[in-house]
Amino acid sequence: MEFSSKLLENAVNEMSQLPGIGKRTALRLVLHLLRQPDTQTFQLADALSKVRAEIKFCKSCHNISDKDICEICENPKRQTDIICVVEDIRDVMAIENTSSFKGLYHVLGGKISPMDGIGPQDLTIKALVEKVKKGTVKELIFAMSPTMEGDTTNFYIFKQIQGMDVATSTIARGVAAGNELEYTDEITLGRSIVDRVPFEASLKS
Amino acid sequence: MEFSSKLLENAVNEMSQLPGIGKRTALRLVLHLLRQPDTQTFQLADALSKVRAEIKFCKSCHNISDKDICEICENPKRQTDIICVVEDIRDVMAIENTSSFKGLYHVLGGKISPMDGIGPQDLTIKALVEKVKKGTVKELIFAMSPTMEGDTTNFYIFKQIQGMDVATSTIARGVAAGNELEYTDEITLGRSIVDRVPFEASLKS
Ligand SMILES: [Zn+2]
Ligand SMILES: [Zn+2]
Repeated sequence: MEFSSKLLENAVNEMSQLPGIGKRTALRLVLHLLRQPDTQTFQLADALSKVRAEIKFCKSCHNISDKDICEICENPKRQTDIICVVEDIRDVMAIENTSSFKGLYHVLGGKISPMDGIGPQDLTIKALVEKVKKGTVKELIFAMSPTMEGDTTNFYIFKQIQGMDVATSTIARGVAAGNELEYTDEITLGRSIVDRVPFEASLKS
Repeated sequence: MEFSSKLLENAVNEMSQLPGIGKRTALRLVLHLLRQPDTQTFQLADALSKVRAEIKFCKSCHNISDKDICEICENPKRQTDIICVVEDIRDVMAIENTSSFKGLYHVLGGKISPMDGIGPQDLTIKALVEKVKKGTVKELIFAMSPTMEGDTTNFYIFKQIQGMDVATSTIARGVAAGNELEYTDEITLGRSIVDRVPFEASLKS
């Protein structure tokens, strides 16, 4: 791609560093900004710089927060003895959206993935284990995505807390609402039969 | 979408102002930036602010340029009596890529589109007509995307210069009707310039 402007080329190159944004898309986005009032670009640049420079992570659950302790951890109505272990902040947002969980979270910041060079020491696993050691946590819910990396991470944590006085559970795996049975993969379908629940119990959800 | 951080929410909102970027994608992009070294975010913000604040448009052809006159207009090897009229800078880049055109460009900055509230006065048509009036231009090649708006724009310009001593042509309809110029393959696009036809003949199709 030949540019008639170094400034434009530079902006397009930086924009195309973002995942899923190729050079063509980056050019389209930058040209769009050039056609809008300049305040839009300045506000975008400012918001990005600010969130990157000033973002904090909750000292307790590692959720993204503007304060040292996030609003969930701070909320006296939340149950403090049950902790849902998730990969990242998007999972917190997704679970909060369901209004089905009233405990606290622990955000790992990723999952163990040797392929990507991510080991246990790159995640907040040690802080989680310390939390459990204190003895006030009754249950850990592993809510990682049901992938090989998710399973590996769950199992690693499980081994770390073995022998401690805490119950562990994982979110149920089964056929998603609205999905056709015949298009569900074998592992999920098999699992959903083994983990079947009494019909009357299923009516309540 | 409920955010645990105002800074994050603000960044996601600004990011999702970009065309084709929804809230979910914006969140994914911002979280990606938060995981990268902060220099990446600062460089992106800086590049965007800079291009928006300092970008110039060539005083002659209205192409994006870092100088008052762009490199194409400045190049003594280009033919100055033949002007290719295009919608925006991406079309200049696409045609330059084919190496099939050695004249100059005139970038309109859009196309006439009553639906989007874009009239002739919002484009650089007046400057183009003034250029033709001087009598040194022998040929105008209309190289707008072959859409209804492109055709309307061509015809509007054609009427403005009627009676002046200039030939008009359009790129050959090797470009499929309804397709955007920038997504056309090089061979088709190059061919369509070589096979350009007199504008009046194109009206009959
Ligand atoms: Zn917290
Ligand atoms: Zn120029």
